[in-house]
Amino acid sequence: MGFKRPKIAIIGAGHTGATVALMVAQKEIGDIVLVDVPDLEKPAKGKALDILQTGPIEKFNVHIAGTAQYEEIAHADIVVITAGIARKPGMTREDLITTNASIIRSVSENVKRFAPNSYVIVLSNPVDAMTYVCLETTGFSKNRVMGQSGILDTARFNTFIAEALQLAVEDVSSFVLGGHGDEMVPLVRYTYVGGIPLEKMLPKAQIQQLVERTRKGGGEIVELLGNGSAYYAPAASIVQMIEAIIKDKRKVMPVIAYLQGEYHVTDACIGVPVILGGNGIESVIELHLNEEEHQAFSKSVQAVNCTLNYIK
Amino acid sequence: MGFKRPKIAIIGAGHTGATVALMVAQKEIGDIVLVDVPDLEKPAKGKALDILQTGPIEKFNVHIAGTAQYEEIAHADIVVITAGIARKPGMTREDLITTNASIIRSVSENVKRFAPNSYVIVLSNPVDAMTYVCLETTGFSKNRVMGQSGILDTARFNTFIAEALQLAVEDVSSFVLGGHGDEMVPLVRYTYVGGIPLEKMLPKAQIQQLVERTRKGGGEIVELLGNGSAYYAPAASIVQMIEAIIKDKRKVMPVIAYLQGEYHVTDACIGVPVILGGNGIESVIELHLNEEEHQAFSKSVQAVNCTLNYIK
Amino acid sequence: MGFKRPKIAIIGAGHTGATVALMVAQKEIGDIVLVDVPDLEKPAKGKALDILQTGPIEKFNVHIAGTAQYEEIAHADIVVITAGIARKPGMTREDLITTNASIIRSVSENVKRFAPNSYVIVLSNPVDAMTYVCLETTGFSKNRVMGQSGILDTARFNTFIAEALQLAVEDVSSFVLGGHGDEMVPLVRYTYVGGIPLEKMLPKAQIQQLVERTRKGGGEIVELLGNGSAYYAPAASIVQMIEAIIKDKRKVMPVIAYLQGEYHVTDACIGVPVILGGNGIESVIELHLNEEEHQAFSKSVQAVNCTLNYIK
Amino acid sequence: MGFKRPKIAIIGAGHTGATVALMVAQKEIGDIVLVDVPDLEKPAKGKALDILQTGPIEKFNVHIAGTAQYEEIAHADIVVITAGIARKPGMTREDLITTNASIIRSVSENVKRFAPNSYVIVLSNPVDAMTYVCLETTGFSKNRVMGQSGILDTARFNTFIAEALQLAVEDVSSFVLGGHGDEMVPLVRYTYVGGIPLEKMLPKAQIQQLVERTRKGGGEIVELLGNGSAYYAPAASIVQMIEAIIKDKRKVMPVIAYLQGEYHVTDACIGVPVILGGNGIESVIELHLNEEEHQAFSKSVQAVNCTLNYIK
Repeated sequence: MGFKRPKIAIIGAGHTGATVALMVAQKEIGDIVLVDVPDLEKPAKGKALDILQTGPIEKFNVHIAGTAQYEEIAHADIVVITAGIARKPGMTREDLITTNASIIRSVSENVKRFAPNSYVIVLSNPVDAMTYVCLETTGFSKNRVMGQSGILDTARFNTFIAEALQLAVEDVSSFVLGGHGDEMVPLVRYTYVGGIPLEKMLPKAQIQQLVERTRKGGGEIVELLGNGSAYYAPAASIVQMIEAIIKDKRKVMPVIAYLQGEYHVTDACIGVPVILGGNGIESVIELHLNEEEHQAFSKSVQAVNCTLNYIK
Repeated sequence: MGFKRPKIAIIGAGHTGATVALMVAQKEIGDIVLVDVPDLEKPAKGKALDILQTGPIEKFNVHIAGTAQYEEIAHADIVVITAGIARKPGMTREDLITTNASIIRSVSENVKRFAPNSYVIVLSNPVDAMTYVCLETTGFSKNRVMGQSGILDTARFNTFIAEALQLAVEDVSSFVLGGHGDEMVPLVRYTYVGGIPLEKMLPKAQIQQLVERTRKGGGEIVELLGNGSAYYAPAASIVQMIEAIIKDKRKVMPVIAYLQGEYHVTDACIGVPVILGGNGIESVIELHLNEEEHQAFSKSVQAVNCTLNYIK
Repeated sequence: MGFKRPKIAIIGAGHTGATVALMVAQKEIGDIVLVDVPDLEKPAKGKALDILQTGPIEKFNVHIAGTAQYEEIAHADIVVITAGIARKPGMTREDLITTNASIIRSVSENVKRFAPNSYVIVLSNPVDAMTYVCLETTGFSKNRVMGQSGILDTARFNTFIAEALQLAVEDVSSFVLGGHGDEMVPLVRYTYVGGIPLEKMLPKAQIQQLVERTRKGGGEIVELLGNGSAYYAPAASIVQMIEAIIKDKRKVMPVIAYLQGEYHVTDACIGVPVILGGNGIESVIELHLNEEEHQAFSKSVQAVNCTLNYIK
Repeated sequence: MGFKRPKIAIIGAGHTGATVALMVAQKEIGDIVLVDVPDLEKPAKGKALDILQTGPIEKFNVHIAGTAQYEEIAHADIVVITAGIARKPGMTREDLITTNASIIRSVSENVKRFAPNSYVIVLSNPVDAMTYVCLETTGFSKNRVMGQSGILDTARFNTFIAEALQLAVEDVSSFVLGGHGDEMVPLVRYTYVGGIPLEKMLPKAQIQQLVERTRKGGGEIVELLGNGSAYYAPAASIVQMIEAIIKDKRKVMPVIAYLQGEYHVTDACIGVPVILGGNGIESVIELHLNEEEHQAFSKSVQAVNCTLNYIK
């Protein structure tokens, strides 16, 4: 009896995991467990403690703990998986996929064992494939396992558009479908600024440049940072998904979902618009695609399937 | 004519500087320039871009830029200085001080030149001394140059107390005086939980343990992280100072201020309670100290003066 | 020197005026002066004091005063005009217009005299005409005088759509043009849910019902309340405009603006999409209207002009 | 399965009830049912709809309904009781008490029947006695039934202190014990400003004036408003209690609790400091009172018991 705060477990206490923890705490969404491997348990504890000490200043009031013990994710409502390695020089793409698939399998087994009723959000790369691995390993129903990519891609596209037009970024609304990566499909037709179609506000060529910059948005930041990838906007994207589920928002969002026939895709996880609410993915929304969009989406699906072949 | 957002310049785009930028953006306090040395200009740009792309998700709407050009801090309302190196193995304490003093002098000259009307908040270590260096180099009036340490130390003390009592952290109110470091002076007599004196809620020995843990609070996190120091709570502390100034809050806060006779201290910068408002440090509040507290404070002042001797 | 909070003056301390004051305080946008006629000075003071006493609980920190002295609006950055009477039984529409026009003229003269550099937002009804009266009386430039109606009408339309679809209301984006009242023009073509055109999500007949309910949205609440009109959503609409100006957001919003040829309208104030930023109305956005929309808009303009004829 | 938002039922849709609804919605604490008697069902629906239409503007996303049907409070997590009449000219104090006791009994029976697992917060006057009536009628355990007065009284005292010192109101921390009304006991010894005892910051006579003004704080606003009592700060006080419970904050707060020996009081409800968390009143904190404070508190208890005698 009595009220308890929701519990959010974050697997992987790197920059993204820790930033998710910070933002969950700032919004007082729930208590937090930040999990990493035994070698990195101390930094996980350090980051958790640093965030906890932010509470008196920012006036938030949640528990935050760092650990290497999966037992501590027990009763988690949401599990966020950010674990995995980044591609290193000399590593083939295949090596990266098999290494991360193996990490995600191991994490997913722990999630299945210790937090069997949780909803899982995957961020590890290649994220479409890793979402698939997680779904398969946990055996959770498809509404409870999802990946993040489209919110981030959309945020980047919106940022570039707002900058080009010198308008408030909250005015821009867009949609990015498909796999995360060069094959993503920003839907220009479904992009508006203050409700006005983007195509009426910028010349086609300039829009195309923004689309290209969005496609390469992750790489742009990797190149600038020099030793890692973006973490602020990815973390905020995850937190928006957590909030939509915990607060039963029924929000339309681009989310990596397991498809069984929708968009003519079967047995793959890929970014599509869904309704995200108290039951996780409540339904997949099938947008009408024109010929060009359909082709781009198919190409994106092929790329995802190609990755999946390494691990299926 | 017309309204402009305030402008916050942050010197040093490391973890703390970037976290300050994130929090300033989340609160929509103003536009942000994140400055670092030419070698680190690209990471500064990368972090700025990553935070900018968080805007569409967290619904904030400010400009954020990374740069190595001090010209871009022109018209800054507030300048935050987080620049400086951390102590490395084999480095004497004296080396650290002289190196950082030289960095802060150079930064302060740029602040003087390019943002002559700004208010300056120093976080670089040893922070009491570096605040002094900044005040001296800029020649700004003493209400406009200040350092941060007490908000962070207080936040840590509050966190430990709330944890010990299993009560809401926002209920705890405490005061930490003196230099940042082992000589800091947590004032137990001025510490309350929900308005009740701490001394009535915990046994003396346990309070003393929390005081000790607070004194070593920075070191605890350094030890856990393994390769750096805390940045979330330090950044939040800075942001609280920025808000108190920009919003003219006239808030009582522990701040490193230049003293000219207050607390019997002359010509040194040290942590004391001040009123922070639209004119920066509006006044220093002289708390009555008992004999024990007075001695601890004097010891702290000596330690700060000792550091200052290397660079005066 | 030093920082000062912005100052917001609210003329008319009825439900809407007081709710604007509450929301400005909650967001810590600035200090507030709540002005009413001498007979109602005491209630204005009472509401101001009640809101001020909310500060320690909701953690906001601004000054709020109630007064009947126009001198106290001196140096206001924004003036909100909610003054005016409601139509009473037996009163002709003409009587209402001439009475309120006379009130707004008197208020506007005081604004001109005591806050000559302010931006003015009019909410008094009939709001299109009263905005015109205010512009004419103050002689302020057209970017600095505006009326609110479209944000509220849009919010109502969005609420009805979200309810019909059982989706998050923040997903819905729509546009309402024209005069406030039965002649308003909800633009279904520019209405989206999570980026998906409304026309693909609801049948035409149901959309038309929602449009009709929106047109009569003000009346629906008047009828329910029994002795007054809506004030929560109207106040929030005003506050959104205040924030867009003070924070220089450059946001696309439906605002009552003075037109000089835009949309083929000359010398009238009517609701159109504008960019609202640090200079008030920074520009009017001319949406392409199809034949049907154009006719509806023209009808709306005629209705507004007809009202204006009573007072021009 | 899946996540559901908490549900808050508010009995009495007057100014206070509606303002509670607004603030619960703004903070997205949960869904809201606003209940009033059949004659006032339409205004309850009107206010609910007006608040709902504020959602798209302030970006909150909860359900809000007005009703006269108690069935609709089913599964409420928290019930707030604001019902009751105000004292009218010619009415004796005894009449008021018996009338409101009868209203609260009827409401409490409905709460018992339709929301048997809820936590109940009473605001109806005389609030100490009405809390007792509610506890007795529902038969709920004493941790689940509480009244609000001390948060409001404290907020008023804090406001007056901050104003006198020209300091940030969030710096002031105080405690008010005892019954709501002239007999309340503001504890000056437990009052601090930025952690500094108030007695060191203001002369005794001035403090005494602020104490007196606080005691008559409700009357001051009644006198100003002319036709009603305060509602903004009272509503915020209620919402702070709701948040402490729903978010399991374990916050120290002055709350009207049922005492069974604490403070030497038996079988009465009166304002004392408690820990408010996920189980409602988790414990009563017994502050040490000096002789003067003890006498004032006893006098306050007598006044409350005297009221209770009319209805026990």
